[in-house]
Amino acid sequence: MIGASGERCPSSYMGHTSLGRKDGPAAAGERGVIMKIRIGILGYGNLGRGVECAVRQNQDMELVAVFTRRHPADVKILTEEAKVCHVDEAAQWKDRLDVLILCGGSATDLPVQTPEYARLFNVVDSFDTHARIPEHFAGVDRAAQAGGKVAVISVGWDPGMFSLNRMYANAILPEGKDYTFWGRGVSQGHSDAVRRIEGVKDARQYTIPVESALASVRAGENPELTVRQKHTRECFVVAEEGADRERIEEEIKTMPNYFAEYDTTVHFISEEELRRDHARIPHGGFVLRSGATGWEKENRHLIEYSLKLDSNPEFTASVIVTYARAAYRLRTEGASGCKTVFDIPPAYLSAKSGAELRASML
Amino acid sequence: MIGASGERCPSSYMGHTSLGRKDGPAAAGERGVIMKIRIGILGYGNLGRGVECAVRQNQDMELVAVFTRRHPADVKILTEEAKVCHVDEAAQWKDRLDVLILCGGSATDLPVQTPEYARLFNVVDSFDTHARIPEHFAGVDRAAQAGGKVAVISVGWDPGMFSLNRMYANAILPEGKDYTFWGRGVSQGHSDAVRRIEGVKDARQYTIPVESALASVRAGENPELTVRQKHTRECFVVAEEGADRERIEEEIKTMPNYFAEYDTTVHFISEEELRRDHARIPHGGFVLRSGATGWEKENRHLIEYSLKLDSNPEFTASVIVTYARAAYRLRTEGASGCKTVFDIPPAYLSAKSGAELRASML
Repeated sequence: MIGASGERCPSSYMGHTSLGRKDGPAAAGERGVIMKIRIGILGYGNLGRGVECAVRQNQDMELVAVFTRRHPADVKILTEEAKVCHVDEAAQWKDRLDVLILCGGSATDLPVQTPEYARLFNVVDSFDTHARIPEHFAGVDRAAQAGGKVAVISVGWDPGMFSLNRMYANAILPEGKDYTFWGRGVSQGHSDAVRRIEGVKDARQYTIPVESALASVRAGENPELTVRQKHTRECFVVAEEGADRERIEEEIKTMPNYFAEYDTTVHFISEEELRRDHARIPHGGFVLRSGATGWEKENRHLIEYSLKLDSNPEFTASVIVTYARAAYRLRTEGASGCKTVFDIPPAYLSAKSGAELRASML
Repeated sequence: MIGASGERCPSSYMGHTSLGRKDGPAAAGERGVIMKIRIGILGYGNLGRGVECAVRQNQDMELVAVFTRRHPADVKILTEEAKVCHVDEAAQWKDRLDVLILCGGSATDLPVQTPEYARLFNVVDSFDTHARIPEHFAGVDRAAQAGGKVAVISVGWDPGMFSLNRMYANAILPEGKDYTFWGRGVSQGHSDAVRRIEGVKDARQYTIPVESALASVRAGENPELTVRQKHTRECFVVAEEGADRERIEEEIKTMPNYFAEYDTTVHFISEEELRRDHARIPHGGFVLRSGATGWEKENRHLIEYSLKLDSNPEFTASVIVTYARAAYRLRTEGASGCKTVFDIPPAYLSAKSGAELRASML
């Protein structure tokens, strides 16, 4: 992904609604209603493109710039009014963006980028390495406090909306049991793992929740479920010509951490079939909490939240964009530091006023 | 429900952990970790009893007093340590409660009680007349501001958790369609309406979502649904001896607003069957949002939140109690005025710290 050094952005460039605006939260607060929240995107892959589409669906926002590690002239974006710049230029946009959305990966990009840019911008990221969130939070919080900015981390659906639903359900039913199922959907990590096997040209891996396990949870049976009992895995593999399919299948099914603990099915298909039938990136899942109330715990309750998504990156991007609105608003009120979905009042996500929300949605 | 004037509470009474405590948010902030949030309940019907049970499930809270319009000596509660007092005594408890939970009805109790008590206490209510929420909010906000207290209104599952899910889903998918289905569950209002018919001794009415309508929404078909297409109604009626059952059935099925717009089934059963098979107060429902993302809206998404509840009042009470925690915390931070579920950061509902939540639930 690391491209050549890009052309420089004309330093005189100002977004079309930014002319004559001063910056910072005070100035932001004084803006008229026609002023839009100026969004920047750092990293233009599936997620970045999803953010671009989501910004277009929100009338109070505008995409101002996309920052890329590739040569900007080689990156075609969809938004005519927005500028494509090299990532090295980003800092120069400090006063021309309200929120910079970081669309890099959790493995190596975000641990570096989020603290770096949280000193200069309000930022939102989708850091999803659950185990390393506390550490990421600490680093980003220091940076955002130092810069007087708001940073929202780990936004999306898991972490994100699933986390929120786990938290709400746990607060409401302190005595109960949590279940999370993922799928049916494409796991990028598992697809990559299959692609690394010798003789594999391309592959797509679907994570599939086990229907009978889900049914047992929904029936209030509070089952204890092993990894194997919760999900199965299905792989669609394009083999190189002449490759040993039996060996590939065996290598997939016995791969530790990724497949060995699951029941896995492997299908060999043609490159054309992969393109035709597996081009989308669907995903989804279920968060359930089964709990009891009453003096003798005599009453049972089931809370279920589920997502069925045609496009994992576009849905993730849609969540991120609502939290960009929240980050901007929090900053205009003087907040700074790192936040998660747990810290942000729901109303901050909506373009509607409190009165509108109470009248229409409560 | 209005009972005789009750015995006076000993004015020297102090909750068992309140001894030596000063009051107000500053003092509250200084309390050690063993100090619990002191809860009062006003109105001891199904909801009040549910709150009592929910408080018991939350280790950071204690029930201190129940206020009733009946003669206190006639009201038996489950919590040994708590006091039963007449509602006229409530104001005297101003400095001995952290949150007063108002468990009256929305028709006549809460419009009066919530503003009245929000001057004296942090309060939570479950006001559920959707159309009158803006007006209720305004009155309660004035009172809570004047009293320097936090009032949270319209807490429960609808309004409450369903509202939250509508709001989150609308913010995430600005282009889409909302659906709410209720049931299968007992509607108290519809049961009461049937009971008012001449010749009806007792009755229970279930609201039932139409499975095919739900299936169509889940399939992303975005159907336009009439009232009749979304829900059916099922009545279990105990008739007085010698009553004209045909006339009763006809009166139910043609009752405007309540039944005329629905397909309604009526079953006549014995009093014993009603007691045996219809003693619980189950409810639940589904909030769905079906929307599209992508530059050409080419990808569809479905967000679904559902509840399956053995006891409507106990689940409502469990939600209320988590918002009592939030009200208390907001007040200790200096907040005042009226809030709804839209205004409260999710983390305020949980007994866990921010760091614990990030490590365990994000």
